[in-house]
Amino acid sequence: MYGNNHLFIPGPTNVPEPVRQAMNIPMEDMRAPDFGAFTKPLLADLKKVYRTETGTVFLYPSSGTGMWETAITNTLNVGDRVLMSRFGQFSLLWVDMATRLGLDVDLCEVEWGKGVPVEEYAEKLAADKEHQIKAVFATQNETATGVKSDIAAVRKALDDANHPALLFVDGVSSIGSVEFEMDKWGVDCAVSGSQKGFMLPAGLGILGVSEKALAMRENAKMPRCYFDLQDMLNLNGDGYFPYTPATQLFRGLRVSVDMLLEAGMENVWARQSWLAAGVHKAVAAWDGCELVARGPEWASDTVSAIYAPEGVDARDVISGAYNKYQTSLGTGLNKLMGKAFRIGHLGSLNPVMLCGAISAAEMALRDAGAKIEPGSGVAAAQEHYREHAG
Amino acid sequence: MYGNNHLFIPGPTNVPEPVRQAMNIPMEDMRAPDFGAFTKPLLADLKKVYRTETGTVFLYPSSGTGMWETAITNTLNVGDRVLMSRFGQFSLLWVDMATRLGLDVDLCEVEWGKGVPVEEYAEKLAADKEHQIKAVFATQNETATGVKSDIAAVRKALDDANHPALLFVDGVSSIGSVEFEMDKWGVDCAVSGSQKGFMLPAGLGILGVSEKALAMRENAKMPRCYFDLQDMLNLNGDGYFPYTPATQLFRGLRVSVDMLLEAGMENVWARQSWLAAGVHKAVAAWDGCELVARGPEWASDTVSAIYAPEGVDARDVISGAYNKYQTSLGTGLNKLMGKAFRIGHLGSLNPVMLCGAISAAEMALRDAGAKIEPGSGVAAAQEHYREHAG
Amino acid sequence: MYGNNHLFIPGPTNVPEPVRQAMNIPMEDMRAPDFGAFTKPLLADLKKVYRTETGTVFLYPSSGTGMWETAITNTLNVGDRVLMSRFGQFSLLWVDMATRLGLDVDLCEVEWGKGVPVEEYAEKLAADKEHQIKAVFATQNETATGVKSDIAAVRKALDDANHPALLFVDGVSSIGSVEFEMDKWGVDCAVSGSQKGFMLPAGLGILGVSEKALAMRENAKMPRCYFDLQDMLNLNGDGYFPYTPATQLFRGLRVSVDMLLEAGMENVWARQSWLAAGVHKAVAAWDGCELVARGPEWASDTVSAIYAPEGVDARDVISGAYNKYQTSLGTGLNKLMGKAFRIGHLGSLNPVMLCGAISAAEMALRDAGAKIEPGSGVAAAQEHYREHAG
Amino acid sequence: MYGNNHLFIPGPTNVPEPVRQAMNIPMEDMRAPDFGAFTKPLLADLKKVYRTETGTVFLYPSSGTGMWETAITNTLNVGDRVLMSRFGQFSLLWVDMATRLGLDVDLCEVEWGKGVPVEEYAEKLAADKEHQIKAVFATQNETATGVKSDIAAVRKALDDANHPALLFVDGVSSIGSVEFEMDKWGVDCAVSGSQKGFMLPAGLGILGVSEKALAMRENAKMPRCYFDLQDMLNLNGDGYFPYTPATQLFRGLRVSVDMLLEAGMENVWARQSWLAAGVHKAVAAWDGCELVARGPEWASDTVSAIYAPEGVDARDVISGAYNKYQTSLGTGLNKLMGKAFRIGHLGSLNPVMLCGAISAAEMALRDAGAKIEPGSGVAAAQEHYREHAG
Repeated sequence: MYGNNHLFIPGPTNVPEPVRQAMNIPMEDMRAPDFGAFTKPLLADLKKVYRTETGTVFLYPSSGTGMWETAITNTLNVGDRVLMSRFGQFSLLWVDMATRLGLDVDLCEVEWGKGVPVEEYAEKLAADKEHQIKAVFATQNETATGVKSDIAAVRKALDDANHPALLFVDGVSSIGSVEFEMDKWGVDCAVSGSQKGFMLPAGLGILGVSEKALAMRENAKMPRCYFDLQDMLNLNGDGYFPYTPATQLFRGLRVSVDMLLEAGMENVWARQSWLAAGVHKAVAAWDGCELVARGPEWASDTVSAIYAPEGVDARDVISGAYNKYQTSLGTGLNKLMGKAFRIGHLGSLNPVMLCGAISAAEMALRDAGAKIEPGSGVAAAQEHYREHAG
Repeated sequence: MYGNNHLFIPGPTNVPEPVRQAMNIPMEDMRAPDFGAFTKPLLADLKKVYRTETGTVFLYPSSGTGMWETAITNTLNVGDRVLMSRFGQFSLLWVDMATRLGLDVDLCEVEWGKGVPVEEYAEKLAADKEHQIKAVFATQNETATGVKSDIAAVRKALDDANHPALLFVDGVSSIGSVEFEMDKWGVDCAVSGSQKGFMLPAGLGILGVSEKALAMRENAKMPRCYFDLQDMLNLNGDGYFPYTPATQLFRGLRVSVDMLLEAGMENVWARQSWLAAGVHKAVAAWDGCELVARGPEWASDTVSAIYAPEGVDARDVISGAYNKYQTSLGTGLNKLMGKAFRIGHLGSLNPVMLCGAISAAEMALRDAGAKIEPGSGVAAAQEHYREHAG
Repeated sequence: MYGNNHLFIPGPTNVPEPVRQAMNIPMEDMRAPDFGAFTKPLLADLKKVYRTETGTVFLYPSSGTGMWETAITNTLNVGDRVLMSRFGQFSLLWVDMATRLGLDVDLCEVEWGKGVPVEEYAEKLAADKEHQIKAVFATQNETATGVKSDIAAVRKALDDANHPALLFVDGVSSIGSVEFEMDKWGVDCAVSGSQKGFMLPAGLGILGVSEKALAMRENAKMPRCYFDLQDMLNLNGDGYFPYTPATQLFRGLRVSVDMLLEAGMENVWARQSWLAAGVHKAVAAWDGCELVARGPEWASDTVSAIYAPEGVDARDVISGAYNKYQTSLGTGLNKLMGKAFRIGHLGSLNPVMLCGAISAAEMALRDAGAKIEPGSGVAAAQEHYREHAG
Repeated sequence: MYGNNHLFIPGPTNVPEPVRQAMNIPMEDMRAPDFGAFTKPLLADLKKVYRTETGTVFLYPSSGTGMWETAITNTLNVGDRVLMSRFGQFSLLWVDMATRLGLDVDLCEVEWGKGVPVEEYAEKLAADKEHQIKAVFATQNETATGVKSDIAAVRKALDDANHPALLFVDGVSSIGSVEFEMDKWGVDCAVSGSQKGFMLPAGLGILGVSEKALAMRENAKMPRCYFDLQDMLNLNGDGYFPYTPATQLFRGLRVSVDMLLEAGMENVWARQSWLAAGVHKAVAAWDGCELVARGPEWASDTVSAIYAPEGVDARDVISGAYNKYQTSLGTGLNKLMGKAFRIGHLGSLNPVMLCGAISAAEMALRDAGAKIEPGSGVAAAQEHYREHAG
């Protein structure tokens, strides 16, 4: 009789009931004659979520991290120079991977709270007359800091410099939730996973690859096998897979993709922004709290990282929310540890759920010593949601 | 991606995940040799929830209404005088049933907002020297008005008058949630259903019957078949049933009864009061709103009926909550239609869920024209829940 | 790792996966503004399964037994003469109920293994010039003996006698499975339940009532409340119910009714006969076994009651199937106890499931001492199913 | 109403109901303070299934193929000589991977139908005085041919030669089903996946690694990131993971591991052999059919690959079983295409399920032109299962 647990981390997200129903199934034969009739339209419809007509979307039993690796190993070679930026735990880990895989990382360090430094990228690209930079990496949504970056602007920087480098986007906590345009923005590798905007359990890596990037695989010599796209290409055309696919998640994905496409991606993005604005207004109403994002132009629509007030340990907020209020908030990662907590607000959500999340945060903040006004954040969120709900 | 619906009606209540899991099963054979090994302990443990050692608990594919009828037809005869009181839609319907079944109802009309008139009962019982009153009916929790009654006091009135009448209690929205003591209070028939404190889907009627009441069945001549307790008695002893029982609900009931007993009934009751107090404080914080219950001694711990402010149509609050905020509130029944709405706060709940419910009500109230302060109720509830949560 | 249990009793039947998925849901508000938009088409589509345009179908939290009682109490009066026949445990129980409810039963005793004695009915109806017989009862499928009866012929007997009596049909184990034509056959009350041809868990009583029968309720004076159709009629028109309906089962019923109607009732009936024929051929192949049904004209398409060979206790077959082979077979009820076992073959089934059931029966028969040839029944069934499968 | 589909491929296998229930859950926070209290005992108990006290078991969102790669890249270097054998599609693919990852494969070609050539291995190991062979690979159960190999004998060959090479075992379709002794046999890397003996959906790779093998990671220089065991080791000790783990599968795995350990691994293995023997006897009873395995010493206990009779295209058997009988049989892979079909008999199974599978195969074989006796295989299996069932 203790009610539901409340999940407001930036992934895994809440699973919609129809998706949950669709995964409550017996197992099936992934070599059945009609399996392709199920998987081929699914792969095709994923392209609509990715907004690509010319690219290809791949599904792996993996996490987003595995898709980062797949993107790199199928297109680049040891020693290749790549342009990257680091402004949070996940962009940091991506840099770490690139380094470990032997890439020559041209790294832009950015204050945590801001995102991809487009001007610095533009300068470096313009300066790279010999096109030594083989790929440009951009984390569209830094999940650790709640910071979004302008991918269209990165593309413009590439175009302005007339630079042929590949554009890699980490869209793990953005694709399926906020505006993402693979073709229009000329994204070459777009990484995502099942447990964020796709509203599924963790377990599926999702990777969009442009024709240009796919063509690189012939000359990409890093050893790879499990993540070799060629093995997928050999069978995906008929809807089959080189190893047993996660069919249970596929059945859920079919439903979540249907939900996204029936709503229309533009409407999904708009709703996501509207939900986020309520949380942002709540944070603004809390004395002494502020977003880690250094200004509204950086504030993410899918996750808010929030500095606890001076003197309040954010870890107490998080553990209090969990232990007293059955509510999972996101922890402050790396240098934000103890300073910030996060509210994930992507996936399957609505205003009343978020009023609950904000209430949990308010109670936990006050328990941890914050002098915020009780109900102040909820009130601000309520007034926001009242405007366009329904 | 539209999130969960929010259910805050006074039943069906939210089903705990372990109960939901337990009902996600293939069908089974209700005549299997080991079926009784499952059902006999279940029936025995239900007695612990009912707090009876000498009584018997019956399970029917039915609703609570069917159990009202079962109680009457198995113990009384046409023309029998019964003492009843009417102060809300459900006590009203019980009176209606008694009348239709041919009982001679001695009816106490009570202002809606109060409950069983114990003093009036006491007077009538004391005056009934010839013991023409065969049964006394008491609605422990009037679900329509959010009003609780004092069953122990009714028992005392009977004892003080040394009156042998049976004591019938409608415990549909109280048993399993708030203090109920079948043996200690000398309750003879105690009616409940699966979809309230037992946290299951609707479909099971639950009836506790004392030895004294059970003995009446021999002389109770109303025609009955489906609801004849004798048919149950013939088979229940071995754990079997005269007609196909609702085994799926039984499997869920096994888990919900375990949850209740593992927590301990006293703790369940205390937690229920504590959850209710948060809602009551929220209502007190809303300008122009007040409980239908005419004082804290009447205010129910499982459901709050709340008068909307002057000039606000409560139906707009309810339809707005449903259509804009995916939140089901209880409607105002009968003479409360348009005047009051209800928040059900029994079953599987916790503070953050209730903060969500209160937020939904606040938004819907303001949308309907109420001048309450945004967040005022949530703030009051938060401060209350902070005290003893966890 | 012990695999699935195998359920081959004549109800509850196996639940199709889409129905199971549809019942894996949170609870919902049965007074929601859009609830009627769900229930009204459901009630309308049930009429298509019942094959009635002019009748009304009712849904109760109940079992089929409750629907028997509902049919009687809403249309007849104490002392009314009714024509009934008894040839198995369920027709026996129906007679028992009619007697207990005060009807004057004109009873035809029939050898177990045969069904409704149409000629005897015809004679009695023809002889009843004063129309003292108010209702004629016919069990379309006697679940205990695996015997079907000819309802169209009973209608003809009524028509030939120009007799106005109501026609009541127990269709619990026939409706939704085998040919049933409520309007064409002039059936006035047709009783069913959720756990047979409707492929749901037990818990819902389903009752079809003709306009003629419905009109009788005004003059039907038996006390009734829970089962009073008037209470349903007051609210069902808008899709609501007088007491909390079993919404979880409704959601499942929506899917099972869709499955039936999408297949087409004629195809459902034909497939049911074809599945049954495989079992019948298996029985014919077993030395010393035979159907309880006294000839193919009586053999039910939904359940086979099978005499164990001389000297073999059928209880051993059933307990062996259950304990050694995780297979539930139907027990021999009443005078068939120890002599017969039953294989339920209605609901969600296919040939391979039935080959499994037949195998379980073969193993259990041999374990119990029967001298049948191993695999003989399966072989016969296989050859039958091969003909038209797919 | 079309009944269950029947899944008899060698993975994914049938999921037990308790496992399915356990996966029907909302998502959870993989960084929750108490998550480690769930995962640490799970990882510890997996070691009991692997029968290792000194090794470590890892869980990845991956397939078994990914675990092959993990084993190689964390222990070996490009150019390392490895001893492998090829006798079916999966051992073939493993050789392919080793080659693509730059290993120097010393390959033993073996007739399909036999397994690891222990004597040849022994000779090569004895001859390798300089210990150039760094690892010996053995497929314990070749899923494509239904052939088992003697891992203990491979260990003995290593020991007899006093050879320090690592021993890698592909246990995808054996671990959790048949005898496997990681410590006793000195296995260094043991690969498995969720969808076979662990009775879960596909999606989890499972890898057991010995202390000796784990120590190699320092000198293993193949680029790796996602599959780098060091990243797991950094966090697994506290029960956390470097990337979002597949928590839904973990919850299922908790239950399936409990089922295995409660039964006792020796009992699991014995039951698996007993189930397999029934299928083997059925095949022996089919005129013109025979196992691909070249003798009982090679015949797998988890999957049977069966040659269709001369003149019968095995593809017709498989497609007929699927289309006419809702039964998935395994296809003949690579050079067995058209010649053989497979019956998977691992995972959650019991005799009646297998009698159904054998029936489906019999019907499909006869439909495809095979002259087998109807019911002959089922009869043989029945008589076998009768002996020790229950």
